[in-house]
Amino acid sequence: MNVPLTAQPNLFRQTRKVRFSHCDPAGMVFFPRYLAQLNDLVEDWFDEALGINYAEFISTRKFGLPTVKLECAFLSPGVFGSEIEWQLSVERIGNSSIGLAVRGVDGGQVRFELHSVLVATAVHQGGAVALPEDLRAALLRFRGPQPQDESAQVR
Amino acid sequence: MNVPLTAQPNLFRQTRKVRFSHCDPAGMVFFPRYLAQLNDLVEDWFDEALGINYAEFISTRKFGLPTVKLECAFLSPGVFGSEIEWQLSVERIGNSSIGLAVRGVDGGQVRFELHSVLVATAVHQGGAVALPEDLRAALLRFRGPQPQDESAQVR
Amino acid sequence: MNVPLTAQPNLFRQTRKVRFSHCDPAGMVFFPRYLAQLNDLVEDWFDEALGINYAEFISTRKFGLPTVKLECAFLSPGVFGSEIEWQLSVERIGNSSIGLAVRGVDGGQVRFELHSVLVATAVHQGGAVALPEDLRAALLRFRGPQPQDESAQVR
Amino acid sequence: MNVPLTAQPNLFRQTRKVRFSHCDPAGMVFFPRYLAQLNDLVEDWFDEALGINYAEFISTRKFGLPTVKLECAFLSPGVFGSEIEWQLSVERIGNSSIGLAVRGVDGGQVRFELHSVLVATAVHQGGAVALPEDLRAALLRFRGPQPQDESAQVR
Repeated sequence: MNVPLTAQPNLFRQTRKVRFSHCDPAGMVFFPRYLAQLNDLVEDWFDEALGINYAEFISTRKFGLPTVKLECAFLSPGVFGSEIEWQLSVERIGNSSIGLAVRGVDGGQVRFELHSVLVATAVHQGGAVALPEDLRAALLRFRGPQPQDESAQVR
Repeated sequence: MNVPLTAQPNLFRQTRKVRFSHCDPAGMVFFPRYLAQLNDLVEDWFDEALGINYAEFISTRKFGLPTVKLECAFLSPGVFGSEIEWQLSVERIGNSSIGLAVRGVDGGQVRFELHSVLVATAVHQGGAVALPEDLRAALLRFRGPQPQDESAQVR
Repeated sequence: MNVPLTAQPNLFRQTRKVRFSHCDPAGMVFFPRYLAQLNDLVEDWFDEALGINYAEFISTRKFGLPTVKLECAFLSPGVFGSEIEWQLSVERIGNSSIGLAVRGVDGGQVRFELHSVLVATAVHQGGAVALPEDLRAALLRFRGPQPQDESAQVR
Repeated sequence: MNVPLTAQPNLFRQTRKVRFSHCDPAGMVFFPRYLAQLNDLVEDWFDEALGINYAEFISTRKFGLPTVKLECAFLSPGVFGSEIEWQLSVERIGNSSIGLAVRGVDGGQVRFELHSVLVATAVHQGGAVALPEDLRAALLRFRGPQPQDESAQVR
């Protein structure tokens, strides 16, 4: 069976209100509130799309998953009362890291584009550890076939 | 005198995860995170149960709805990864104020009980104003018939 | 020199800006932001007034200090750019609990009055434990002489 | 080649505790809490170093100053109870934008490096506006003499 080279990366989508609690005196989203939501989105993506319970991953299996890198472009203001579709895709699967791209879209307009790198750590020792196998398998399944060779992207 | 079953205060229910972003170094909900969620709940209750668009109420109709009183009992810790059912009911409908009771339940356990009083204000003047008629009507509909005479509760 | 029995409870004072990050679309403090600050105030009060390192109390000595009760009156809106003097006093010293009163004053106006009850717990077991002796001694020193007999206030 | 001491970018420094309210279940700073603090730092830098009242700039003069771009490297975890020195410098002064570099240092260790771009806007119209003259002058004063020609950096 052929999978076209142009296969779009799989997207995890979630629509969220821009809430009063997110907004600043200008009535626009105060950007740090987006970033707490980014973490919530990752949590739901684990639970709902990857099939790996995020809280268990942290609390029981004792992994950390800190964000070590983050790039944000806030392209247009998020307006109180509007709805934003959050779209998450996987940009890179490393040995111990996951590169994510997250975009927020409201109607035709892109509100923000975020790129983050999460690293698996061992909570009690600190330091990066390899992504556990079930997580790696789920990430590969989620991302689907890639136009480029996987090994070229591993770091 | 019989009080019909339907005299029970109507409840607005919403189930929410206890998220990583809510929790403190002890892995329990840091209580101020509950209170931002309380505001989000009121927002959803307006939109979904009262049929009054909260953002429009604030942004377009220029009402404020500040919390002027709040009583909280945090009865048992909210645990990362669990789910809490938030149950909102109306305790009192005043001339310009709304008294709410909100309870958080996880399985058989009550996590918290909150009582808050919101007051309608005119954003640009400050100061309390009467609840607008559509909001008052929606509140009465939501609350359903009461065992006591309404006027006794107005303040 | 006589210290009158009516000696005012000792106050821990701290002046804080009302910041952009605290304010809502109406340009007023969003009340949950006050409550995160309340915890920060308790932290500074431990460190600076009680002489007990708060982080060490939690991280090394493994006590929890959750807020189990909270009553808030938000009397006038906190305005972006203003300064609020936070005044903390001890209302009650229980076997395992501490009752605090915190008031926020801006010029002649009281912005809020908060009453909270913190309970000492053992992080890994849960459940209340007696306040450790150094904390109890520091609390008594901080509060100063009381008009009523101490035992009447213990619960 | 010698670079005169005065060519160093001027730094605005502020030492802050890593607080309980900043930390996640791993006892480390939850990264969005850094970013709310970043805004607070900018506020204090305006007030204390630039001599321009931030709240007045926003509330009275009706400028917005949204963050449109942000790059973060979280290099080592911020530990509850430690202190971080925040160091802010100006990287670029554009026609309507300000490029900032902010570094967080704890002892010898760098906790994070942030680069943000703020853009001046007119709150009621939206859209970028030129930095007002007093702000531009204050930025140039703060930054001090530059090794390169200013015009090369304006955009």
